Amino acid sequence: MWETNRLKRLVRTTYPLIQAGMAGGPTTPELVAAVSEAGGLGTLGAGYMKPEDLRKDIRSVRKLTDRPFAVNLFIPEPIDVDEAKIAASAERLAAYRQKLGVTETEAGAVQTDGPPFEQQLAVLLEERVPVFSCTFGVPSAETVSRLKENGTVVIGTATTVAEAIELERGGADAIVAQGSEAGGHRGTFAAPYGEAMVGTMALVPQIVDRVSVPVAAAGGIMDARTAAAAFVLGAEGVQMGTAFLTCEESGTRMPHRAALLKRDETSTVVTKAFSGKPARGIRNAFIEEMAPYEDDLPAYPIQNSLTKGIRKAAAERNLPDYMSLWAGQGYTLSREGTAQELVESVVSGVERIFRNGSRR
Amino acid sequence: MWETNRLKRLVRTTYPLIQAGMAGGPTTPELVAAVSEAGGLGTLGAGYMKPEDLRKDIRSVRKLTDRPFAVNLFIPEPIDVDEAKIAASAERLAAYRQKLGVTETEAGAVQTDGPPFEQQLAVLLEERVPVFSCTFGVPSAETVSRLKENGTVVIGTATTVAEAIELERGGADAIVAQGSEAGGHRGTFAAPYGEAMVGTMALVPQIVDRVSVPVAAAGGIMDARTAAAAFVLGAEGVQMGTAFLTCEESGTRMPHRAALLKRDETSTVVTKAFSGKPARGIRNAFIEEMAPYEDDLPAYPIQNSLTKGIRKAAAERNLPDYMSLWAGQGYTLSREGTAQELVESVVSGVERIFRNGSRR
Repeated sequence: MWETNRLKRLVRTTYPLIQAGMAGGPTTPELVAAVSEAGGLGTLGAGYMKPEDLRKDIRSVRKLTDRPFAVNLFIPEPIDVDEAKIAASAERLAAYRQKLGVTETEAGAVQTDGPPFEQQLAVLLEERVPVFSCTFGVPSAETVSRLKENGTVVIGTATTVAEAIELERGGADAIVAQGSEAGGHRGTFAAPYGEAMVGTMALVPQIVDRVSVPVAAAGGIMDARTAAAAFVLGAEGVQMGTAFLTCEESGTRMPHRAALLKRDETSTVVTKAFSGKPARGIRNAFIEEMAPYEDDLPAYPIQNSLTKGIRKAAAERNLPDYMSLWAGQGYTLSREGTAQELVESVVSGVERIFRNGSRR
Repeated sequence: MWETNRLKRLVRTTYPLIQAGMAGGPTTPELVAAVSEAGGLGTLGAGYMKPEDLRKDIRSVRKLTDRPFAVNLFIPEPIDVDEAKIAASAERLAAYRQKLGVTETEAGAVQTDGPPFEQQLAVLLEERVPVFSCTFGVPSAETVSRLKENGTVVIGTATTVAEAIELERGGADAIVAQGSEAGGHRGTFAAPYGEAMVGTMALVPQIVDRVSVPVAAAGGIMDARTAAAAFVLGAEGVQMGTAFLTCEESGTRMPHRAALLKRDETSTVVTKAFSGKPARGIRNAFIEEMAPYEDDLPAYPIQNSLTKGIRKAAAERNLPDYMSLWAGQGYTLSREGTAQELVESVVSGVERIFRNGSRR
């Protein structure tokens, strides 16, 4: 059933199934390569990565697979450096550092610069990465043309119809439509994030109607039925993030993995507490305690750097209450297994649903 | 393809397609009867109705169709009467009354009581209504047994897995899973509403996995593809609200209808400004101007009664900026036509999608 699918032809995979580029650890070269080997499109979530680490990871992926893969980067945004907010946040967080025994070295420096996008991009160009995907904006015309001249496919992330149109005009070859169900950071760049909390069921058909490039649905896609539903909505692909977090190959920290597999609730919230940018995760003590200050936090990536030592220490000390437990609203459908098993179960399940459709 | 569908067998319709019980005007007896005549389940949105008006409408429906239909009521909730909030809100609203020329008679009295549920229920029992659907809670055991003894099917509304489980335990024969995309009032009753903003793509499969009664998906269901996607997710029915607002038979006010058909944006917001209870509608001046007071408004139904005269006058004077323009996140897919045309296009489209599934 995939022969005529435009997305898989564009990215030269067997199936139009993308593993989301989740930054900050989960997308190990092993995960990326396993997804691509299974016929999907693995993605290195490289938003936070130093150029030299990115190059190393790209080469590690290539040692494990000859198949296409993607690298996801963050489009640079203006950063609002508000010294008063930084000081207030640092003071609030000092108590957490003390409680968790975070040393000054572990805490690290306050970071008021975004990741080095140009240097990251240079690595992508030099390494001739097959697919570039991006979040938080539209790449510049120059970036797009440099990538395309290099043979790299460009995929953008939209959370509204307007963002999708802007990305298509900006030269994106395909668009990920990120519904409000999605875990981790909201990709929103052209609207207040609250207005851009559009559910996948409403977002995908409206975007599909308004752009001509292929659209991959993201947000709530956890298994064969949710993937098949996305195709019925008009998506030509799916991007799955949370579902890959519990795969063996992922670098998800143990307490995060355990929280995802508890399966006893659906209470995720969108919070700026960890990074200064809205992101969806499982509710925990840190989110609750920081909720009153949600509007007073320094912007991304400043807050992200301020909480870094706390998140790291909490992960090492098995304290999920002080980690960012990113998760989409469908996370209780998480399962253990390999990335290959996940890709195969989704693909074969979708094929079965469409084959049996008339007998429903 | 519908022979074995449990929901349509339960409510004795031709198709498992429910027209949502939208209170406050849109669900005229003509609309309800037209939906039922077309093979769906029309629903009188009777939450606000006086018992005598409800009886009249039920009889009007019965004059137009012999087919099953539903009546939707609000489950009574404790009402928080906060005199300071009432006074502050009344003062803020005085300026709007003046601007719109709302007389004291038009403004009406402040209402601190909920609708007369027991009397509404008595009408349903006396009239032997085929289907009872409810929002904002779980009907009492006594209510459920009286309805069931009377031969009435009971359908509840859930916005979380926990609410769905509670409704099933409470005796609901079927459950409407209301995703965050849905227009109008959130049905949330067992969680802070923000935590219960779960997208349809994530909500439906998780509820389907946890209850044994049939589930109808609501929120973003606007056409054949969104309805088919809901069935793929495991729903055995769909409930559509917004899509019926632009049908000829609906009582939707002209400015509301025009706003739905503009189709140039997707900016809906959830606001308590009109009723004191969170509801999704198209952003307008009233919502924006009241946003700073969102946490200081009197509770439902008090705020609802305070804004009643303003909403009515605005509708009459064609001022959409001061009306509640309820709409789901898929509203740009709204089309003009009859209810029969809508039901037929959805049903035949779903059948076509499932028939052609293997050829996608």
